[in-house]
Amino acid sequence: MSESAHINPNLKHRKKALDVEELFEQLKNGEISALSKSITLVESTAVSDSAFAKAILSKALPYSGKSFRLGITGVPGVGKSTFIEALGSHLISSGKKVAVLAIDPSSSISRGSILGDKTRMEELVKSDQAFIRPSPAGTTLGGVARKTREAIILCEAAGFDFIIIETVGVGQSETAVHSMTDFFLLLKLAGAGDDLQGIKKGIMEMADLIVINKADGENKTAAKHAQREFKNALHLMPSRNNNWSTKVITASGLKQEGISEVGSQIQEYKAQSESNGSFQERRNLQEIYWLHQTIEDRLKSEFYNRPAIEKHLKNIEQQILDKKITAFEAADILMNKK
Amino acid sequence: MSESAHINPNLKHRKKALDVEELFEQLKNGEISALSKSITLVESTAVSDSAFAKAILSKALPYSGKSFRLGITGVPGVGKSTFIEALGSHLISSGKKVAVLAIDPSSSISRGSILGDKTRMEELVKSDQAFIRPSPAGTTLGGVARKTREAIILCEAAGFDFIIIETVGVGQSETAVHSMTDFFLLLKLAGAGDDLQGIKKGIMEMADLIVINKADGENKTAAKHAQREFKNALHLMPSRNNNWSTKVITASGLKQEGISEVGSQIQEYKAQSESNGSFQERRNLQEIYWLHQTIEDRLKSEFYNRPAIEKHLKNIEQQILDKKITAFEAADILMNKK
Repeated sequence: MSESAHINPNLKHRKKALDVEELFEQLKNGEISALSKSITLVESTAVSDSAFAKAILSKALPYSGKSFRLGITGVPGVGKSTFIEALGSHLISSGKKVAVLAIDPSSSISRGSILGDKTRMEELVKSDQAFIRPSPAGTTLGGVARKTREAIILCEAAGFDFIIIETVGVGQSETAVHSMTDFFLLLKLAGAGDDLQGIKKGIMEMADLIVINKADGENKTAAKHAQREFKNALHLMPSRNNNWSTKVITASGLKQEGISEVGSQIQEYKAQSESNGSFQERRNLQEIYWLHQTIEDRLKSEFYNRPAIEKHLKNIEQQILDKKITAFEAADILMNKK
Repeated sequence: MSESAHINPNLKHRKKALDVEELFEQLKNGEISALSKSITLVESTAVSDSAFAKAILSKALPYSGKSFRLGITGVPGVGKSTFIEALGSHLISSGKKVAVLAIDPSSSISRGSILGDKTRMEELVKSDQAFIRPSPAGTTLGGVARKTREAIILCEAAGFDFIIIETVGVGQSETAVHSMTDFFLLLKLAGAGDDLQGIKKGIMEMADLIVINKADGENKTAAKHAQREFKNALHLMPSRNNNWSTKVITASGLKQEGISEVGSQIQEYKAQSESNGSFQERRNLQEIYWLHQTIEDRLKSEFYNRPAIEKHLKNIEQQILDKKITAFEAADILMNKK
């Protein structure tokens, strides 16, 4: 990668003498503006930014990996922003630096995105120990996930101790967030049927912690009831291969209750998974997962974008439904259309 | 496909004058020996059998699709064979023809496979309204699944009303069975922790019916307790988009108790899903799923079998783990090695 560390002189001038060495030094010193600028470069689709983006990532990579990466999901209305604000402030009060990123493949610059409205996290926004970044724009989950993974690397090089990655769970985004975090926290509401919660298959089984949020005021009893129900349900689910047993706790982001218990759960998980090796193992599996996931996405997109496939696919699918050919024969036919 | 309907004369003589028209007539008349022979041809990896296999499948295809396809999973020890024997006999006693197939990607001819020991289903084996076939041998789930899907087509052309597909749940085999059946039945045991039951992520959410088996004698109370627990757990899970609400019932394959309730659930599901269109919709989605799944499997296997990829993959993976390159850069590098 060393050749791309030197940007070409034209670009350098056009970019107001942006210098990769200088920017990286500022980033490594924890300067928020440098971090922000670096993420913007990495997110950029402009060809002229690509060499610079590669260079800064390449420099950051050896300094990455030292944060605790925390995924948080839950449907709109579950109180994610308020909860993240409370948890983030709690972590900062114990001397940590907290970055909050988001994944929302349905977002685009024009429509805004989750975390786009930063005013929802007033306390965090004010703190110089926090960094909040909305979801990168993108049309595919793969693209959005890649940019977020790269933003994690940059945040880590900038010295953030905790990186919270939020998702509303569009498409497979929970799986993506689960696959880039050390700990996956599922926010739930008491009383709401799961229809309302819109939680998809297997999400509960991904969770390292389930938090029944909004457990305050009149809602407390219902939250306790939901807690028992989820505990029972978890009991029937597959056990995890890292010996961690997922707990269900109640909390209130608004009243800042139960937040320190969330913090304790995270600390306990970190200590346990580091000592039994499952922390590094999960990270390694994630790296390899992203390699193969990216390859598969690209193989598929190259195949389905071939003109011959685009031309014949619908017709072939119809032939299958009309019982003229089997799905396997159809696959043979399409695979032979180069 | 009509050109492959005429087998070449050499093959014809070698195969003791096997005639595709004749074999298909026998198959369509429900002759078990013809069905058995056809499945053997379809399962065969011999190049000399391939044209004949294609021809018989092609003839059977327009007559396929009229059975009710029933997937059954549960870990070893849950009593699958006894349960299937009881359910199969129940269906036969109401005038139906029942075929039992199996999917076990870990099976091979030498090691035997589930359903290989036909004596475990004494009643069904004796009935001329039943057909039992062990799992096809194969090293990949994709290959085994394809053969089973093709066997379904042949069984349907032979006039079977119910096709039961059993799996022990090796690898992703439950997903494969779920993706080729109209109704997915999960067998569970009372009292056994899920660790012991070895059920994997998302399986419970696939189930159209959960049956707590071995609910007899002293086990009855525990089975009732498990039934309540599973009912509560289902309540917390995503609702299904076909308006079906998965029930949990207790049964005993051994004592033949609860079996008619299983039959009623199947009938109810069939009536409801046919009337609201979700039956055909699920079938159509499955056909398209198998097309794309087969394509993806082949794209991946072609890619990873390239000599350049086989040569560099491990090294590239290590570079990722050593933080020399990101997983995304690594994917770019590998994609460019043609």
